[in-house]
Amino acid sequence: MTLKIALGQLLVESGHPSVNVQKMKNMIAQAKEDGVDIIVFPQMCVGGYFLADKWYSSEWRKELLFYNEEIAGCSDGIGVVWGNIYEENNIVFDAGYYAHNQEITYIQPKQNLQQTGVYNDGRYLTSQASNCAFVFEKDRQQHILGIVVGDDLYNDKVMERLVACDYILHIESKPWTLDDENKKDERVATLLPKVYSVNAAGMQNTGKNIVMFDGKSCVYEKGIRVCTLRDDFAEEYAVCDYYDHSKKYKLLNCLVRAIQEFDRQIMGYNPKWIIGLSGGLDSSVTAALLTMALGSERVCGYNLATKYNSQKTKDNAQNEADALGIKIRNGYISDIHKATTETMHIYGYNDEQMPTLVHENIQARIRGNVLSTFSQIENGVIMNNGNKIEVALGYATLYGDSIGAMSPLGDLTKVQLFELSRQINMKFEKEIIPERLLPVVTENELLWEMAPSAELKDNQYDPMKWFYHDWLISKLTDSKCNVEDIMESYLDGSLLQSEVGRWIKHYHLDEPKAFIDDLEWVLRQMRIAIFKRIQMPPIVMVTNSAYGSNHLEIQGTWDVTRRYQELKEKILAM
Amino acid sequence: MTLKIALGQLLVESGHPSVNVQKMKNMIAQAKEDGVDIIVFPQMCVGGYFLADKWYSSEWRKELLFYNEEIAGCSDGIGVVWGNIYEENNIVFDAGYYAHNQEITYIQPKQNLQQTGVYNDGRYLTSQASNCAFVFEKDRQQHILGIVVGDDLYNDKVMERLVACDYILHIESKPWTLDDENKKDERVATLLPKVYSVNAAGMQNTGKNIVMFDGKSCVYEKGIRVCTLRDDFAEEYAVCDYYDHSKKYKLLNCLVRAIQEFDRQIMGYNPKWIIGLSGGLDSSVTAALLTMALGSERVCGYNLATKYNSQKTKDNAQNEADALGIKIRNGYISDIHKATTETMHIYGYNDEQMPTLVHENIQARIRGNVLSTFSQIENGVIMNNGNKIEVALGYATLYGDSIGAMSPLGDLTKVQLFELSRQINMKFEKEIIPERLLPVVTENELLWEMAPSAELKDNQYDPMKWFYHDWLISKLTDSKCNVEDIMESYLDGSLLQSEVGRWIKHYHLDEPKAFIDDLEWVLRQMRIAIFKRIQMPPIVMVTNSAYGSNHLEIQGTWDVTRRYQELKEKILAM
Repeated sequence: MTLKIALGQLLVESGHPSVNVQKMKNMIAQAKEDGVDIIVFPQMCVGGYFLADKWYSSEWRKELLFYNEEIAGCSDGIGVVWGNIYEENNIVFDAGYYAHNQEITYIQPKQNLQQTGVYNDGRYLTSQASNCAFVFEKDRQQHILGIVVGDDLYNDKVMERLVACDYILHIESKPWTLDDENKKDERVATLLPKVYSVNAAGMQNTGKNIVMFDGKSCVYEKGIRVCTLRDDFAEEYAVCDYYDHSKKYKLLNCLVRAIQEFDRQIMGYNPKWIIGLSGGLDSSVTAALLTMALGSERVCGYNLATKYNSQKTKDNAQNEADALGIKIRNGYISDIHKATTETMHIYGYNDEQMPTLVHENIQARIRGNVLSTFSQIENGVIMNNGNKIEVALGYATLYGDSIGAMSPLGDLTKVQLFELSRQINMKFEKEIIPERLLPVVTENELLWEMAPSAELKDNQYDPMKWFYHDWLISKLTDSKCNVEDIMESYLDGSLLQSEVGRWIKHYHLDEPKAFIDDLEWVLRQMRIAIFKRIQMPPIVMVTNSAYGSNHLEIQGTWDVTRRYQELKEKILAM
Repeated sequence: MTLKIALGQLLVESGHPSVNVQKMKNMIAQAKEDGVDIIVFPQMCVGGYFLADKWYSSEWRKELLFYNEEIAGCSDGIGVVWGNIYEENNIVFDAGYYAHNQEITYIQPKQNLQQTGVYNDGRYLTSQASNCAFVFEKDRQQHILGIVVGDDLYNDKVMERLVACDYILHIESKPWTLDDENKKDERVATLLPKVYSVNAAGMQNTGKNIVMFDGKSCVYEKGIRVCTLRDDFAEEYAVCDYYDHSKKYKLLNCLVRAIQEFDRQIMGYNPKWIIGLSGGLDSSVTAALLTMALGSERVCGYNLATKYNSQKTKDNAQNEADALGIKIRNGYISDIHKATTETMHIYGYNDEQMPTLVHENIQARIRGNVLSTFSQIENGVIMNNGNKIEVALGYATLYGDSIGAMSPLGDLTKVQLFELSRQINMKFEKEIIPERLLPVVTENELLWEMAPSAELKDNQYDPMKWFYHDWLISKLTDSKCNVEDIMESYLDGSLLQSEVGRWIKHYHLDEPKAFIDDLEWVLRQMRIAIFKRIQMPPIVMVTNSAYGSNHLEIQGTWDVTRRYQELKEKILAM
């Protein structure tokens, strides 16, 4: 007789054990009705995983531990497995708990501290090696079960101790990223016991990042995934289920849920979301995401025109607002711009001292001010529109277009936005994001009807080398990548042969000096822009190199390495 | 014959091994001239300690390791001890090196990973336990020396292995805070060997914090400090020296050096520093610090008057600028304010929808915009003026007065600013900070000639309960403190008996409901203000509870603990 095991894929709300435990109780009650033997909940599901220095509060930890008794109290006639801290003499562990018949009979601490990316285990938690199995008796047959917490799954020493188990119950709270999608399947493929892996769903945050949990709890038999729960970042209780995973929309789902949960958990009062609608791509995508997440009533668009805004982009903005059914208010900021220029005169600065770039930034910051004012009047929240390429290069005016309460696109390259736009149009089954904002890529050309522009002066176009810079910045923000390796592959020709090679040629960077000049411009911009990123809103993390808590930076300059210098000289001598 | 040991208290520049190693070479040459046996440099002195994810770059680590050979190459006839990483199969240690006669003969890895506060060792480094001694022969006599790296000094197991040593060479890179001033003396008091403790000097940063190293390298004999180097955050080479430590100015020195080093290392081009001079206390102190750090030529003050600014504060600003010899430009922002209000009308908002608070924030952000514009025209950098109480409570307008490249006062309470102001006036030997901005505290009263005000509307005064809130916020940002303990001490009467009790009575918070209402207001403001802190400039850390990398926070709400609820009910029933 095999065990009937239920998966409690909880949407864990940080800081709210009362809410989480109530939902656990409801699921336990359901499981009892379903004749379930054991129900499994995620790692750190009582109070959330990412709590920053709240972990230092002994009162808070005491509060979390209190709930263990509450949960155990519901385990009459059913086994319950869940994650919470365990504490002994002020030493704190990340642990898996097992209770049965109102008694906690097994506690499994985590051995592998998670310390990279957004994780900060070492600051709060202690590592502990220990045995890993308990017994569940059903119809006089004994089943051996092991609990594995979080990344212990990837620790060979931990897993060796579990070979004799009949079942492995893996509990985790794993922020989703595009990079890690198949990591667990590959790992479990090597395991013999039946594996029930339960992940959290929903959103938590680290201050500088909003991290999303896709759920996607699953069951493996002989290493094969035989059952998968919802992977759209939502809660689910299931004994075993199969969910249709159209991976196509995963990123889109992630962003929509991120907005929903941020709005619900952090804001909590159903505010209006304020967005500057320029008619450009980034704000169009953001407005569409907001509408998908919260409905058109909750979104307020504003067109903040300057004399440089083309009728086309104004039309784009209006058309998109109409298509989404959101209200848009139109106006212009030129009077404030004029008053600001005159005020500069009062302070003794003349027009010669104010070249175009000064006026571009003045206008961007005026937009920041009026959006903030709209937001205050509407008792609303401002949404940031920037993408990762802008964030990386600092192509945004601090206190201007860099403002907002959250940044849903700040970990996506522009190229990822092109694909996302097409998905949004597919979902809506109409042209929400104007097709004319998307490039057409032919064999030899990159065609734009309307190339990306900040429209802060005449005939201004963004200086980014799209497709190539998208690739380059993804590389350079990956902690495993050294710029020297990119240079090496340029030198030996393999870079030009690779997929990105066509774009390097497209932008004439196959000319060595142009390549080096461009590379050093990107490196310099990325370095200087750190001071802006320090003051930018929290970014929704979708890769393992998201700026914020995932990719940590300091301000300052760096010596050039010897190898860099050597490679640069060799390239220039090509 | 005892050994002649020199201390190389290096001002370590993050990211610049070429600079650091050149200075080490110069000191080694000097030490040779002085007939020194061994010269000791700080922990991680080759490339800096706080490098964030640059530690992940294998190329960068290779570059740092290259310099070990360079340093060893200078050790002919002299022993050299220094700190750098050590790497084996991609496992990285924080290590102490010893080279003699051009050969590295001893490497001491650090055992204790530093993981709290601004430290993040566990993300990049591995812990290693090992032996801790080497031998130096002089005049046929053998001396046993141990190297201790960083916080290993506080690890009993590490120190036990060193009891047989004649000398302990302690190398550290320890960010200074007010809290830790005497920690090392207390620890070393228990040690028998002669201890040479060498610390770094200068500034490094963690992104969100600017951390300062006071130096204060020292020599202990039988646990007694017998020699101390400069503790004013500056570099020093000394065989043994005694520096006059007038602790009185330590905090002032820290802030002045922080500005100097941030300006030199991070900005690097001698920019003008832009500061809004309102005539209030915080901006007065900041202007004085800037002038002390960089000279009056480098400071540009701007008075950004609204109709609510009193003649008195304008006079303060002018008088202070005159006293400091800095240029001040006067003007007003009312035209921009008017244009902004009218633009709101264009967008369909009427005056009834814009209560006073909306206008206060509009004006604050206009100041943000014009200061940013001044800064761009002058090719300058904006200085933030906010203090820790404002940062904690969010008493600043985001994108308005919260802006800037660095925040020198963001970890100081207002009460600390009062003392600092008096020190500044003493240093200048004249009234730089207007005395009328400082309160007079008598037995029963708190007297202000000019109480703190943002002057954004008529008769507006800051809502903070000075002295009490300063104390409360210092407590609440300390990770070891639970709010429940404060409530407990209110309940049992000990809080009212304590030093802060007089202020609790002064503000009539000895009335239980008033106490709870005020406490919950503070807690709520501190929680809501996190979204602002996420977007604020880097703060100079002067305590162990500095916002930024030292005191980590997430956004969101929290369940109230059972004990909190209980205590609150008991207090309200008092």
